[in-house]
Amino acid sequence: MDQGSKRITAAALVIGDEILSGRTQDVNIGTIARFLGRLGIDLCEARCVPDIEDEIVAAVNALRARYTYVFTTGGIGPTHDDITADAIGKAFGLPVEHHPEAMALLAARYAPGEFNERRQRMARVPKGASLIRNSVSVAPGFQVENVFVMAGVPKIMQAMLEDIEPRLTHGVLVKSRFYTVRLPEGRIAAALAEIQQRHAEVTIGSYPFFSQGGPQSGISAGTTLIVRGRNEVEVDAAGAEIETLVRAFGAELEPLK
Amino acid sequence: MDQGSKRITAAALVIGDEILSGRTQDVNIGTIARFLGRLGIDLCEARCVPDIEDEIVAAVNALRARYTYVFTTGGIGPTHDDITADAIGKAFGLPVEHHPEAMALLAARYAPGEFNERRQRMARVPKGASLIRNSVSVAPGFQVENVFVMAGVPKIMQAMLEDIEPRLTHGVLVKSRFYTVRLPEGRIAAALAEIQQRHAEVTIGSYPFFSQGGPQSGISAGTTLIVRGRNEVEVDAAGAEIETLVRAFGAELEPLK
Repeated sequence: MDQGSKRITAAALVIGDEILSGRTQDVNIGTIARFLGRLGIDLCEARCVPDIEDEIVAAVNALRARYTYVFTTGGIGPTHDDITADAIGKAFGLPVEHHPEAMALLAARYAPGEFNERRQRMARVPKGASLIRNSVSVAPGFQVENVFVMAGVPKIMQAMLEDIEPRLTHGVLVKSRFYTVRLPEGRIAAALAEIQQRHAEVTIGSYPFFSQGGPQSGISAGTTLIVRGRNEVEVDAAGAEIETLVRAFGAELEPLK
Repeated sequence: MDQGSKRITAAALVIGDEILSGRTQDVNIGTIARFLGRLGIDLCEARCVPDIEDEIVAAVNALRARYTYVFTTGGIGPTHDDITADAIGKAFGLPVEHHPEAMALLAARYAPGEFNERRQRMARVPKGASLIRNSVSVAPGFQVENVFVMAGVPKIMQAMLEDIEPRLTHGVLVKSRFYTVRLPEGRIAAALAEIQQRHAEVTIGSYPFFSQGGPQSGISAGTTLIVRGRNEVEVDAAGAEIETLVRAFGAELEPLK
């Protein structure tokens, strides 16, 4: 499965009441997932927790013990509800201090007199943390061991991922094949299960889609099939069997939209 | 905080490789959050896990022990990667069986000969589970104790929430006030923290937004402030202080877009 290399794993932790109240739609998990995919790192879990210190601490400690990397988003601004730096400090048992380089970066950005105490809070990081710069906003994120702490604003978070990339151990890339089939998944499910059994090294995902009017019939209009795996020979072999299966049903394979 | 009533809590559990690979953008967490908000139930945590039985079992057991309700999405279709029913059975230590009513519902939907063994799998639920019907697709979800198991397709999941609603204990509604302010949050952060301290019964969220060109300056163009709480008098009192604060800075309150 990993061609002899160690599998590199990750978790995402989205911090913020606004996600759990349904006011803000999270898009950061997907961005992190695709970013990691390009590096051969598996995003294995994602969690959203509220702006409550104990909840953040518990989640960070559970995830950092289990996965190679943890990526958090949110809660590093200047206001009272931005408590991520303190929570990460508590999770690691580290004091939280003003980082001199972050102080300098931020001080240079504000007009004289505008770099107030609250804005200086954005320079607070757990002792020994390294900064995560970003090309969009000057306020940095930070890294403590295997935990990367990023902003919640999507554009800023994306820019932080660029700064993080060179620090990450890359894994073996996952190869994938996508097929769109004009058959309801229930018709091909049995044959698909057999293909999956014959190719245990790959995972075959089956996702129904519905015609314009929605799933009123209860029967999908078609199915997107995704073969994923690190052994390209196996991915291709499973993919070839899917192509044969679909043709046996007299259906067409369509390019994925 | 809860005016004498017990707080009703919930967690969402999104099941599926497609979310963690970044191929599919989850929208179900937000839908569940807003649905629960209208019933006065607090969504306290959300998790995304892959299509791996042990992961689903561990997450379900952690969440159902901790929160009043758990809502899962995904993994209840007819294909080999739909393993949620078995995972829920395992989590509760219950055998998984074909539910007679679900079998009848599904059998009536398919053309003769089309209700194959794989499609019959959609009628499998843990022993004693009650069905969750939906007006969109005939394939049901199911409820075991405080865990509600729903489809991953957003339209179908939404229809299942309608069927679930009468089964839920409602909580005290959270009242909220929204303010949009043309001030960067760093300028009002100190005063805002004081308002939060004076009104511990409410939570004040501060969310920066940026001008069209994005957060290039590193300084937000404005701030959305959200006051939330179950004591309306306190919500209004904190809101009034925010209005006074904003005017003191010579800025305008704008209607929320």
